[in-house]
Amino acid sequence: MQIEIWSDVVCPWCYIGKRRLESALADFEHADEVEVVWRSFQLDPTAPLEATESIAAHLGSKYGGGPEAGRQMIDRVTEVAEGEGLAFDYHEAQRASTVDAHRLLHLAHAEGGSRLQGELKERLLASYFTEARNPADPAVLTEAAVAMIGLPQERVTAVLGSDEYADEVAADSAQAAAYGATGVPFFVVDRKYGVSGAQPSEVFAQLLERAWTESQPLVQVGGGDGETGDACGPDGCAT
Amino acid sequence: MQIEIWSDVVCPWCYIGKRRLESALADFEHADEVEVVWRSFQLDPTAPLEATESIAAHLGSKYGGGPEAGRQMIDRVTEVAEGEGLAFDYHEAQRASTVDAHRLLHLAHAEGGSRLQGELKERLLASYFTEARNPADPAVLTEAAVAMIGLPQERVTAVLGSDEYADEVAADSAQAAAYGATGVPFFVVDRKYGVSGAQPSEVFAQLLERAWTESQPLVQVGGGDGETGDACGPDGCAT
Repeated sequence: MQIEIWSDVVCPWCYIGKRRLESALADFEHADEVEVVWRSFQLDPTAPLEATESIAAHLGSKYGGGPEAGRQMIDRVTEVAEGEGLAFDYHEAQRASTVDAHRLLHLAHAEGGSRLQGELKERLLASYFTEARNPADPAVLTEAAVAMIGLPQERVTAVLGSDEYADEVAADSAQAAAYGATGVPFFVVDRKYGVSGAQPSEVFAQLLERAWTESQPLVQVGGGDGETGDACGPDGCAT
Repeated sequence: MQIEIWSDVVCPWCYIGKRRLESALADFEHADEVEVVWRSFQLDPTAPLEATESIAAHLGSKYGGGPEAGRQMIDRVTEVAEGEGLAFDYHEAQRASTVDAHRLLHLAHAEGGSRLQGELKERLLASYFTEARNPADPAVLTEAAVAMIGLPQERVTAVLGSDEYADEVAADSAQAAAYGATGVPFFVVDRKYGVSGAQPSEVFAQLLERAWTESQPLVQVGGGDGETGDACGPDGCAT
Protein backbone atom coordinates (compact mmCIF):
# COMPACT_ATOMS: atom_id res chain seq x y z
CA MET A 1 0.00 0.00 0.00
CA GLN A 2 1.34 3.39 -0.89
CA ILE A 3 0.61 6.74 0.76
CA GLU A 4 1.73 9.80 -1.15
CA ILE A 5 1.81 12.98 0.92
CA TRP A 6 1.97 16.41 -0.63
CA SER A 7 3.56 18.63 1.97
CA ASP A 8 5.93 21.52 2.56
CA VAL A 9 8.76 21.65 5.09
CA VAL A 10 7.47 25.01 6.40
CA CYS A 11 3.84 23.90 6.75
CA PRO A 12 2.90 23.45 10.41
CA TRP A 13 -0.20 21.35 9.70
CA CYS A 14 1.96 19.07 7.57
CA TYR A 15 4.15 18.27 10.57
CA ILE A 16 1.13 17.83 12.83
CA GLY A 17 -0.61 15.69 10.21
CA LYS A 18 2.55 13.59 9.85
CA ARG A 19 2.42 12.78 13.58
CA ARG A 20 -1.28 11.92 13.38
CA LEU A 21 -0.72 9.56 10.47
CA GLU A 22 2.25 8.01 12.27
CA SER A 23 0.09 7.49 15.30
CA ALA A 24 -2.45 5.61 13.15
CA LEU A 25 0.34 3.61 11.50
CA ALA A 26 1.75 2.63 14.90
CA ASP A 27 -1.49 0.76 15.61
CA PHE A 28 -1.90 -0.61 12.09
CA GLU A 29 -1.23 -4.31 11.73
CA HIS A 30 0.18 -4.06 8.21
CA ALA A 31 2.27 -0.93 8.74
CA ASP A 32 5.39 -2.65 7.38
CA GLU A 33 3.65 -3.04 4.04
CA VAL A 34 2.84 0.67 3.80
CA GLU A 35 5.20 2.86 1.79
CA VAL A 36 5.09 6.60 2.44
CA VAL A 37 6.32 8.84 -0.40
CA TRP A 38 6.71 12.59 0.15
CA ARG A 39 5.60 14.81 -2.72
CA SER A 40 6.66 18.41 -3.16
CA PHE A 41 4.34 21.34 -2.59
CA GLN A 42 5.59 24.90 -2.20
CA LEU A 43 3.20 26.70 0.09
CA ASP A 44 4.74 30.07 -0.67
CA PRO A 45 6.30 29.84 -4.14
CA THR A 46 7.12 33.56 -4.12
CA ALA A 47 9.27 33.29 -0.97
CA PRO A 48 12.80 34.55 -1.72
CA LEU A 49 15.84 32.27 -1.95
CA GLU A 50 17.60 34.57 0.53
CA ALA A 51 15.74 35.06 3.79
CA THR A 52 14.78 38.67 4.53
CA GLU A 53 12.33 38.53 7.42
CA SER A 54 11.04 36.26 10.15
CA ILE A 55 7.93 34.24 9.51
CA ALA A 56 6.22 36.06 12.41
CA ALA A 57 6.93 39.43 10.74
CA HIS A 58 5.78 38.07 7.38
CA LEU A 59 2.50 36.74 8.76
CA GLY A 60 1.93 39.99 10.63
CA SER A 61 2.34 42.08 7.50
CA LYS A 62 0.38 39.68 5.27
CA TYR A 63 -2.65 39.39 7.56
CA GLY A 64 -2.28 42.64 9.48
CA GLY A 65 -1.45 43.36 13.11
CA GLY A 66 2.33 43.37 12.78
CA PRO A 67 4.86 40.91 14.17
CA GLU A 68 2.95 40.49 17.44
CA ALA A 69 -0.15 39.27 15.57
CA GLY A 70 2.11 36.95 13.59
CA ARG A 71 3.56 35.56 16.82
CA GLN A 72 0.07 34.91 18.17
CA MET A 73 -0.89 32.95 15.03
CA ILE A 74 2.20 30.85 15.58
CA ASP A 75 1.34 30.44 19.26
CA ARG A 76 -2.04 28.93 18.39
CA VAL A 77 -0.52 26.30 16.07
CA THR A 78 2.24 25.65 18.61
CA GLU A 79 -0.42 24.73 21.18
CA VAL A 80 -1.99 22.15 18.86
CA ALA A 81 1.45 20.78 17.98
CA GLU A 82 2.17 20.31 21.67
CA GLY A 83 -0.80 17.95 21.82
CA GLU A 84 1.00 15.76 19.27
CA GLY A 85 4.26 15.81 21.24
CA LEU A 86 5.91 18.43 19.01
CA ALA A 87 7.84 21.30 20.62
CA PHE A 88 7.37 24.05 18.04
CA ASP A 89 9.52 27.14 18.49
CA TYR A 90 9.69 28.90 15.14
CA HIS A 91 8.67 32.54 15.71
CA GLU A 92 12.10 33.62 14.53
CA ALA A 93 12.37 31.16 11.63
CA GLN A 94 13.07 32.94 8.37
CA ARG A 95 10.62 33.09 5.50
CA ALA A 96 12.48 31.62 2.51
CA SER A 97 11.99 29.37 -0.50
CA THR A 98 11.67 25.63 0.08
CA VAL A 99 12.46 24.58 -3.48
CA ASP A 100 15.97 23.42 -2.59
CA ALA A 101 14.65 21.40 0.34
CA HIS A 102 12.21 19.69 -2.02
CA ARG A 103 14.94 18.99 -4.57
CA LEU A 104 16.98 17.30 -1.84
CA LEU A 105 13.95 15.23 -0.83
CA HIS A 106 13.83 13.93 -4.40
CA LEU A 107 17.55 13.19 -4.24
CA ALA A 108 17.04 11.28 -0.98
CA HIS A 109 14.38 9.16 -2.64
CA ALA A 110 16.62 8.44 -5.61
CA GLU A 111 19.53 7.53 -3.36
CA GLY A 112 17.77 5.54 -0.68
CA GLY A 113 14.11 5.12 -1.48
CA SER A 114 11.23 6.14 0.73
CA ARG A 115 12.98 5.19 3.97
CA LEU A 116 15.80 7.70 3.49
CA GLN A 117 13.43 10.30 2.09
CA GLY A 118 11.25 9.94 5.18
CA GLU A 119 14.24 10.50 7.45
CA LEU A 120 15.19 13.68 5.61
CA LYS A 121 11.62 14.96 5.64
CA GLU A 122 11.42 14.53 9.42
CA ARG A 123 14.80 16.25 9.85
CA LEU A 124 13.83 19.23 7.68
CA LEU A 125 10.53 19.71 9.51
CA ALA A 126 12.26 19.51 12.90
CA SER A 127 14.95 21.93 11.72
CA TYR A 128 12.39 24.59 10.86
CA PHE A 129 9.72 24.10 13.50
CA THR A 130 11.75 23.19 16.56
CA GLU A 131 15.07 24.93 15.78
CA ALA A 132 13.83 27.87 13.69
CA ARG A 133 16.55 27.29 11.13
CA ASN A 134 16.47 28.90 7.69
CA PRO A 135 14.92 26.35 5.28
CA ALA A 136 16.78 27.81 2.26
CA ASP A 137 20.26 28.00 3.77
CA PRO A 138 22.58 25.62 1.88
CA ALA A 139 24.58 25.03 5.08
CA VAL A 140 21.46 24.02 6.99
CA LEU A 141 20.30 21.79 4.14
CA THR A 142 23.71 20.20 3.70
CA GLU A 143 24.05 19.49 7.40
CA ALA A 144 20.64 17.83 7.42
CA ALA A 145 21.19 15.81 4.25
CA VAL A 146 24.83 14.82 4.70
CA ALA A 147 25.76 14.86 8.39
CA MET A 148 22.43 13.72 9.75
CA ILE A 149 20.94 11.54 7.02
CA GLY A 150 24.10 10.31 5.32
CA LEU A 151 23.46 11.36 1.73
CA PRO A 152 26.70 11.57 -0.30
CA GLN A 153 28.27 15.02 0.09
CA GLU A 154 29.15 15.29 -3.61
CA ARG A 155 25.58 14.55 -4.74
CA VAL A 156 24.10 17.07 -2.27
CA THR A 157 26.57 19.73 -3.42
CA ALA A 158 25.85 18.94 -7.08
CA VAL A 159 22.09 19.17 -6.58
CA LEU A 160 22.27 22.41 -4.59
CA GLY A 161 24.58 23.91 -7.22
CA SER A 162 22.28 23.07 -10.13
CA ASP A 163 18.58 22.84 -10.90
CA GLU A 164 18.56 19.05 -10.64
CA TYR A 165 15.15 17.66 -9.60
CA ALA A 166 13.45 21.02 -10.25
CA ASP A 167 11.35 19.22 -12.89
CA GLU A 168 10.30 16.60 -10.36
CA VAL A 169 9.29 19.31 -7.87
CA ALA A 170 7.19 20.98 -10.57
CA ALA A 171 5.67 17.64 -11.61
CA ASP A 172 4.59 16.98 -8.02
CA SER A 173 2.89 20.37 -7.87
CA ALA A 174 1.15 19.72 -11.17
CA GLN A 175 -0.11 16.38 -9.87
CA ALA A 176 -1.47 18.06 -6.74
CA ALA A 177 -3.29 20.57 -8.92
CA ALA A 178 -4.67 17.72 -11.05
CA TYR A 179 -6.08 16.19 -7.87
CA GLY A 180 -7.64 19.53 -7.02
CA ALA A 181 -5.49 20.01 -3.93
CA THR A 182 -5.06 23.67 -3.06
CA GLY A 183 -3.51 23.21 0.36
CA VAL A 184 -1.36 20.79 2.28
CA PRO A 185 -0.97 18.30 3.82
CA PHE A 186 -2.75 16.26 1.17
CA PHE A 187 -2.68 12.49 1.45
CA VAL A 188 -3.40 10.06 -1.38
CA VAL A 189 -3.64 6.33 -0.73
CA ASP A 190 -3.02 3.96 -3.63
CA ARG A 191 -3.99 6.75 -6.02
CA LYS A 192 -7.55 6.17 -4.92
CA TYR A 193 -8.38 7.88 -1.62
CA GLY A 194 -7.63 11.50 -0.87
CA VAL A 195 -7.43 13.13 2.54
CA SER A 196 -7.12 16.91 2.87
CA GLY A 197 -5.50 18.40 5.91
CA ALA A 198 -4.27 17.17 9.26
CA GLN A 199 -7.26 15.01 10.09
CA PRO A 200 -7.50 13.28 13.48
CA SER A 201 -5.50 10.04 13.66
CA GLU A 202 -8.77 8.07 13.86
CA VAL A 203 -9.57 9.18 10.31
CA PHE A 204 -6.21 7.87 9.15
CA ALA A 205 -6.75 4.63 11.07
CA GLN A 206 -10.08 4.03 9.37
CA LEU A 207 -8.64 4.89 5.99
CA LEU A 208 -5.75 2.46 6.44
CA GLU A 209 -8.15 -0.37 7.26
CA ARG A 210 -10.45 0.45 4.37
CA ALA A 211 -7.69 0.79 1.79
CA TRP A 212 -6.02 -2.37 3.05
CA THR A 213 -9.20 -4.41 2.74
CA GLU A 214 -9.70 -3.22 -0.81
CA SER A 215 -6.11 -3.73 -1.86
CA GLN A 216 -5.87 -7.36 -0.70
CA PRO A 217 -5.95 -9.41 -2.79
CA LEU A 218 -5.57 -7.83 -6.20
CA VAL A 219 -8.61 -8.07 -8.42
CA GLN A 220 -7.44 -10.48 -11.11
CA VAL A 221 -8.37 -9.28 -14.55
CA GLY A 222 -8.15 -11.55 -17.55
CA GLY A 223 -9.62 -12.74 -20.81
CA GLY A 224 -11.86 -15.31 -19.18
CA ASP A 225 -12.61 -15.55 -15.50
CA GLY A 226 -9.33 -14.10 -14.32
CA GLU A 227 -7.47 -16.49 -16.59
CA THR A 228 -3.71 -16.21 -17.00
CA GLY A 229 -2.20 -15.11 -20.30
CA ASP A 230 0.97 -16.53 -21.79
CA ALA A 231 3.76 -16.11 -19.33
CA CYS A 232 7.20 -17.28 -18.36
CA GLY A 233 7.88 -18.82 -14.98
CA PRO A 234 10.49 -20.95 -13.24
CA ASP A 235 9.26 -23.91 -15.30
CA GLY A 236 9.66 -22.16 -18.62
CA CYS A 237 7.63 -20.13 -21.05
CA ALA A 238 4.20 -21.30 -22.20
CA THR A 239 4.05 -21.54 -25.97
CA MET B 1 -2.77 6.08 -12.88
CA GLN B 2 0.17 3.81 -12.32
CA ILE B 3 0.94 0.48 -13.96
CA GLU B 4 3.70 -1.56 -12.34
CA ILE B 5 5.03 -4.37 -14.50
CA TRP B 6 7.08 -7.21 -13.11
CA SER B 7 9.16 -8.46 -15.99
CA ASP B 8 12.53 -9.85 -17.01
CA VAL B 9 14.66 -8.66 -19.93
CA VAL B 10 15.01 -12.28 -21.17
CA CYS B 11 11.30 -13.11 -20.93
CA PRO B 12 9.74 -13.33 -24.41
CA TRP B 13 6.16 -13.01 -23.18
CA CYS B 14 7.19 -9.88 -21.32
CA TYR B 15 8.25 -8.23 -24.56
CA ILE B 16 5.11 -9.42 -26.35
CA GLY B 17 2.95 -8.31 -23.43
CA LYS B 18 4.67 -4.92 -23.46
CA ARG B 19 3.62 -4.43 -27.09
CA ARG B 20 0.05 -5.49 -26.34
CA LEU B 21 -0.19 -3.03 -23.45
CA GLU B 22 1.34 -0.30 -25.62
CA SER B 23 -1.22 -1.03 -28.30
CA ALA B 24 -4.01 -0.56 -25.73
CA LEU B 25 -2.36 2.61 -24.43
CA ALA B 26 -2.12 4.04 -27.97
CA ASP B 27 -5.92 4.05 -28.13
CA PHE B 28 -6.43 5.18 -24.54
CA GLU B 29 -7.62 8.74 -24.16
CA HIS B 30 -5.78 9.35 -20.88
CA ALA B 31 -2.52 7.62 -21.82
CA ASP B 32 -0.49 10.71 -20.89
CA GLU B 33 -1.70 10.34 -17.32
CA VAL B 34 -0.54 6.73 -17.08
CA GLU B 35 2.85 6.06 -15.51
CA VAL B 36 4.50 2.73 -16.27
CA VAL B 37 7.05 1.50 -13.71
CA TRP B 38 9.16 -1.59 -14.43
CA ARG B 39 9.69 -3.94 -11.51
CA SER B 40 12.45 -6.53 -11.35
CA PHE B 41 11.81 -10.26 -11.68
CA GLN B 42 14.58 -12.75 -12.37
CA LEU B 43 13.08 -15.59 -14.34
CA ASP B 44 16.17 -17.74 -13.94
CA PRO B 45 17.89 -16.62 -10.74
CA THR B 46 20.43 -19.46 -11.01
CA ALA B 47 21.69 -18.30 -14.41
CA PRO B 48 25.45 -17.62 -14.23
CA LEU B 49 26.97 -14.14 -14.36
CA GLU B 50 29.26 -15.38 -17.14
CA ALA B 51 27.43 -16.83 -20.13
CA THR B 52 28.26 -20.49 -20.83
CA GLU B 53 25.69 -21.69 -23.34
CA SER B 54 23.09 -20.45 -25.77
CA ILE B 55 19.49 -20.21 -24.63
CA ALA B 56 18.51 -22.77 -27.30
CA ALA B 57 21.02 -25.26 -25.87
CA HIS B 58 19.83 -24.52 -22.33
CA LEU B 59 16.16 -25.02 -23.18
CA GLY B 60 17.02 -28.21 -25.07
CA SER B 61 18.83 -29.70 -22.11
CA LYS B 62 16.30 -28.48 -19.53
CA TYR B 63 13.23 -29.80 -21.34
CA GLY B 64 14.85 -32.52 -23.42
CA GLY B 65 15.41 -32.89 -27.16
CA GLY B 66 18.71 -31.06 -27.38
CA PRO B 67 19.46 -27.71 -29.02
CA GLU B 68 17.16 -28.43 -31.96
CA ALA B 69 14.17 -28.82 -29.64
CA GLY B 70 15.25 -25.61 -27.90
CA ARG B 71 15.35 -23.83 -31.27
CA GLN B 72 11.83 -25.03 -32.07
CA MET B 73 10.50 -23.66 -28.76
CA ILE B 74 12.03 -20.33 -29.67
CA ASP B 75 10.57 -20.55 -33.18
CA ARG B 76 7.06 -20.85 -31.78
CA VAL B 77 7.41 -17.75 -29.61
CA THR B 78 9.08 -15.93 -32.50
CA GLU B 79 6.00 -16.53 -34.63
CA VAL B 80 3.70 -14.98 -32.02
CA ALA B 81 6.10 -12.06 -31.59
CA GLU B 82 5.96 -11.43 -35.34
CA GLY B 83 2.22 -10.86 -34.98
CA GLU B 84 3.07 -7.97 -32.64
CA GLY B 85 5.60 -6.48 -35.05
CA LEU B 86 8.62 -7.85 -33.17
CA ALA B 87 11.47 -9.47 -35.14
CA PHE B 88 12.78 -11.99 -32.61
CA ASP B 89 16.09 -13.65 -33.49
CA TYR B 90 17.57 -14.95 -30.26
CA HIS B 91 18.42 -18.64 -30.78
CA GLU B 92 22.06 -17.84 -30.15
CA ALA B 93 21.50 -15.44 -27.26
CA GLN B 94 23.43 -16.49 -24.19
CA ARG B 95 21.83 -17.72 -21.00
CA ALA B 96 23.12 -15.41 -18.27
CA SER B 97 22.03 -13.56 -15.14
CA THR B 98 19.84 -10.50 -15.53
CA VAL B 99 20.51 -9.05 -12.10
CA ASP B 100 22.83 -6.34 -13.45
CA ALA B 101 20.29 -5.36 -16.09
CA HIS B 102 17.68 -4.97 -13.34
CA ARG B 103 20.05 -2.93 -11.19
CA LEU B 104 20.57 -0.55 -14.13
CA LEU B 105 16.82 -0.29 -14.61
CA HIS B 106 16.59 0.93 -11.02
CA LEU B 107 19.40 3.39 -11.70
CA ALA B 108 17.56 4.66 -14.78
CA HIS B 109 14.46 5.26 -12.68
CA ALA B 110 16.46 7.12 -10.04
CA GLU B 111 18.20 9.25 -12.68
CA GLY B 112 15.32 10.01 -15.00
CA GLY B 113 12.08 8.61 -13.66
CA SER B 114 9.79 6.22 -15.45
CA ARG B 115 10.37 7.77 -18.87
CA LEU B 116 14.08 6.98 -18.90
CA GLN B 117 13.52 3.62 -17.25
CA GLY B 118 11.04 2.73 -20.00
CA GLU B 119 13.54 3.61 -22.68
CA LEU B 120 16.19 1.41 -21.11
CA LYS B 121 13.74 -1.47 -20.67
CA GLU B 122 12.82 -1.35 -24.35
CA ARG B 123 16.49 -1.22 -25.34
CA LEU B 124 17.46 -4.20 -23.16
CA LEU B 125 14.59 -6.31 -24.50
CA ALA B 126 15.49 -5.42 -28.09
CA SER B 127 19.16 -6.16 -27.41
CA TYR B 128 18.39 -9.69 -26.27
CA PHE B 129 15.48 -10.70 -28.48
CA THR B 130 16.34 -9.02 -31.77
CA GLU B 131 20.15 -8.88 -31.54
CA ALA B 132 20.84 -11.96 -29.38
CA ARG B 133 23.26 -10.01 -27.23
CA ASN B 134 24.47 -11.30 -23.88
CA PRO B 135 22.24 -9.74 -21.17
CA ALA B 136 24.99 -9.98 -18.52
CA ASP B 137 27.85 -8.49 -20.53
CA PRO B 138 28.96 -5.20 -18.91
CA ALA B 139 29.93 -3.84 -22.34
CA VAL B 140 26.47 -4.58 -23.74
CA LEU B 141 24.78 -3.09 -20.67
CA THR B 142 27.00 -0.02 -20.68
CA GLU B 143 26.41 0.63 -24.37
CA ALA B 144 22.66 0.39 -23.84
CA ALA B 145 22.60 2.54 -20.71
CA VAL B 146 25.17 5.19 -21.65
CA ALA B 147 25.46 5.45 -25.42
CA MET B 148 21.85 4.75 -26.27
CA ILE B 149 19.89 6.03 -23.27
CA GLY B 150 22.22 8.71 -21.98
CA LEU B 151 22.72 7.64 -18.40
CA PRO B 152 25.89 9.14 -16.87
CA GLN B 153 28.88 6.89 -17.61
CA GLU B 154 30.28 7.25 -14.08
CA ARG B 155 27.03 6.18 -12.43
CA VAL B 156 26.64 3.17 -14.72
CA THR B 157 30.24 2.10 -14.04
CA ALA B 158 29.74 2.59 -10.30
CA VAL B 159 26.55 0.53 -10.23
CA LEU B 160 28.01 -2.29 -12.35
CA GLY B 161 31.11 -2.34 -10.15
CA SER B 162 29.15 -2.62 -6.90
CA ASP B 163 25.97 -4.20 -5.60
CA GLU B 164 24.05 -0.94 -5.72
CA TYR B 165 20.30 -1.45 -6.21
CA ALA B 166 20.58 -5.17 -5.42
CA ASP B 167 18.27 -4.54 -2.45
CA GLU B 168 15.72 -2.88 -4.71
CA VAL B 169 15.82 -5.83 -7.11
CA ALA B 170 15.23 -8.21 -4.20
CA ALA B 171 12.43 -6.00 -2.84
CA ASP B 172 10.67 -6.11 -6.21
CA SER B 173 10.85 -9.91 -6.22
CA ALA B 174 9.50 -10.06 -2.68
CA GLN B 175 6.60 -7.82 -3.68
CA ALA B 176 5.80 -10.09 -6.63
CA ALA B 177 5.77 -13.06 -4.29
CA ALA B 178 3.50 -11.16 -1.90
CA TYR B 179 1.08 -10.65 -4.78
CA GLY B 180 1.25 -14.37 -5.51
CA ALA B 181 2.91 -13.85 -8.90
CA THR B 182 4.94 -16.88 -9.94
CA GLY B 183 5.56 -15.86 -13.53
CA VAL B 184 5.95 -12.78 -15.66
CA PRO B 185 4.84 -10.48 -17.15
CA PHE B 186 2.69 -9.48 -14.21
CA PHE B 187 0.85 -6.16 -14.36
CA VAL B 188 -0.55 -4.28 -11.38
CA VAL B 189 -2.70 -1.18 -11.86
CA ASP B 190 -2.91 1.31 -8.99
CA ARG B 191 -2.02 -1.50 -6.58
CA LYS B 192 -5.53 -2.78 -7.14
CA TYR B 193 -5.87 -4.80 -10.34
CA GLY B 194 -3.55 -7.64 -11.31
CA VAL B 195 -3.07 -9.10 -14.77
CA SER B 196 -1.01 -12.25 -15.27
CA GLY B 197 0.70 -12.89 -18.56
CA ALA B 198 0.67 -11.35 -22.01
CA GLN B 199 -3.08 -10.99 -22.33
CA PRO B 200 -4.64 -9.72 -25.58
CA SER B 201 -4.53 -5.94 -25.94
CA GLU B 202 -8.34 -5.83 -25.59
CA VAL B 203 -7.97 -7.04 -22.00
CA PHE B 204 -5.55 -4.21 -21.29
CA ALA B 205 -7.87 -1.72 -23.01
CA GLN B 206 -10.81 -2.76 -20.81
CA LEU B 207 -8.66 -2.67 -17.71
CA LEU B 208 -7.42 0.86 -18.49
CA GLU B 209 -11.00 2.11 -18.86
CA ARG B 210 -12.15 0.40 -15.68
CA ALA B 211 -9.22 1.54 -13.56
CA TRP B 212 -9.52 5.07 -14.93
CA THR B 213 -13.20 5.32 -14.08
CA GLU B 214 -12.51 4.17 -10.55
CA SER B 215 -9.52 6.41 -10.03
CA GLN B 216 -11.19 9.66 -11.04
CA PRO B 217 -11.87 11.52 -8.90
CA LEU B 218 -10.25 10.49 -5.64
CA VAL B 219 -12.63 9.30 -2.99
CA GLN B 220 -12.42 12.06 -0.42
CA VAL B 221 -12.14 10.69 3.08
CA GLY B 222 -12.62 12.87 6.11
CA GLY B 223 -14.00 13.32 9.58
CA GLY B 224 -17.41 14.41 8.39
CA ASP B 225 -18.70 14.13 4.84
CA GLY B 226 -15.33 14.42 3.17
CA GLU B 227 -14.55 17.48 5.26
CA THR B 228 -11.15 19.09 5.12
CA GLY B 229 -8.85 18.99 8.12
CA ASP B 230 -6.59 21.82 9.23
CA ALA B 231 -4.35 22.74 6.35
CA CYS B 232 -2.10 25.43 4.93
CA GLY B 233 -2.77 26.99 1.56
CA PRO B 234 -1.86 30.06 -0.44
CA ASP B 235 -4.04 32.11 1.90
CA GLY B 236 -2.35 30.89 5.04
CA CYS B 237 -2.74 28.21 7.66
CA ALA B 238 -6.08 27.58 9.35
CA THR B 239 -5.77 27.87 13.10
